[in-house]
Amino acid sequence: MDLLGDWWTPLVLRELVYGSERFDDIQAALGVGRNVLSQRLQRLEKEGLVARRKYQDHPPRHHYLLTEKGRDFFPVLAMIVRWGDRWLDGGKGPPVLLRHKSCGRAIHGEMVCSHCGKKFTRDDIAVETPAGEPITLEDRVSAIARLNASKSRK
Amino acid sequence: MDLLGDWWTPLVLRELVYGSERFDDIQAALGVGRNVLSQRLQRLEKEGLVARRKYQDHPPRHHYLLTEKGRDFFPVLAMIVRWGDRWLDGGKGPPVLLRHKSCGRAIHGEMVCSHCGKKFTRDDIAVETPAGEPITLEDRVSAIARLNASKSRK
Repeated sequence: MDLLGDWWTPLVLRELVYGSERFDDIQAALGVGRNVLSQRLQRLEKEGLVARRKYQDHPPRHHYLLTEKGRDFFPVLAMIVRWGDRWLDGGKGPPVLLRHKSCGRAIHGEMVCSHCGKKFTRDDIAVETPAGEPITLEDRVSAIARLNASKSRK
Repeated sequence: MDLLGDWWTPLVLRELVYGSERFDDIQAALGVGRNVLSQRLQRLEKEGLVARRKYQDHPPRHHYLLTEKGRDFFPVLAMIVRWGDRWLDGGKGPPVLLRHKSCGRAIHGEMVCSHCGKKFTRDDIAVETPAGEPITLEDRVSAIARLNASKSRK
């Protein structure tokens, strides 16, 4: 979550997923300030989700491309789209369609179990520590404390 | 994305998904300031993801519970967990396990097509307008312009 910063980051990723490669296109599509966009792209590049490729020398111009790590963020975006279509559409229908090339239908992402392939919701899941114990509030408090301690050491 | 604000919102949702119901517990688990948490919870309540239930009168105390709309956000969180486990684990393994009660395994969410049930990635999808046309940069620029216009009217 720290890496993702604010919601500009997934919006930038969404633009890259949609195929925008130029700074000016991403900026126009999002209506975001140049400084904010530049910071988010630098962070995404540093974290390995985005690669910058120079395509012109005078003046220097770059393309922004998703790495494999960046492309693998797509399921998060697709699930946000699914949730928005379901709960925020206000009767107007979805603003974009995702067409599945192999079956030809306008679809949405559905979440299934990586082992048995069944759909699941929160109620079907037990959240556990790596040792297989139920996770407690104390575990989460101390995890956050460790995270904050490691940040302040940087 | 506007509704979600910054990443405190999904973190608050995560705490509620984990079963925290009291303001102080959520605050302790996230290490977030009381004002920020209070704002996020109010926004989530206003947007219908969270319901507040009074459980004590003197002094007034509330539980925070997920509505159906809030609970349905779980797939987004589960996909963030999947992505983080895959790309950010730093060799230490996942910080939490999701155990699927029905098959008994530690699993992750996998995204499949709602129509044909096949796994898919960005490359398997064509993004289209509601009319079935390829979506262009111009479509996205004008969608953002409309959104900003409707915000400034409020």
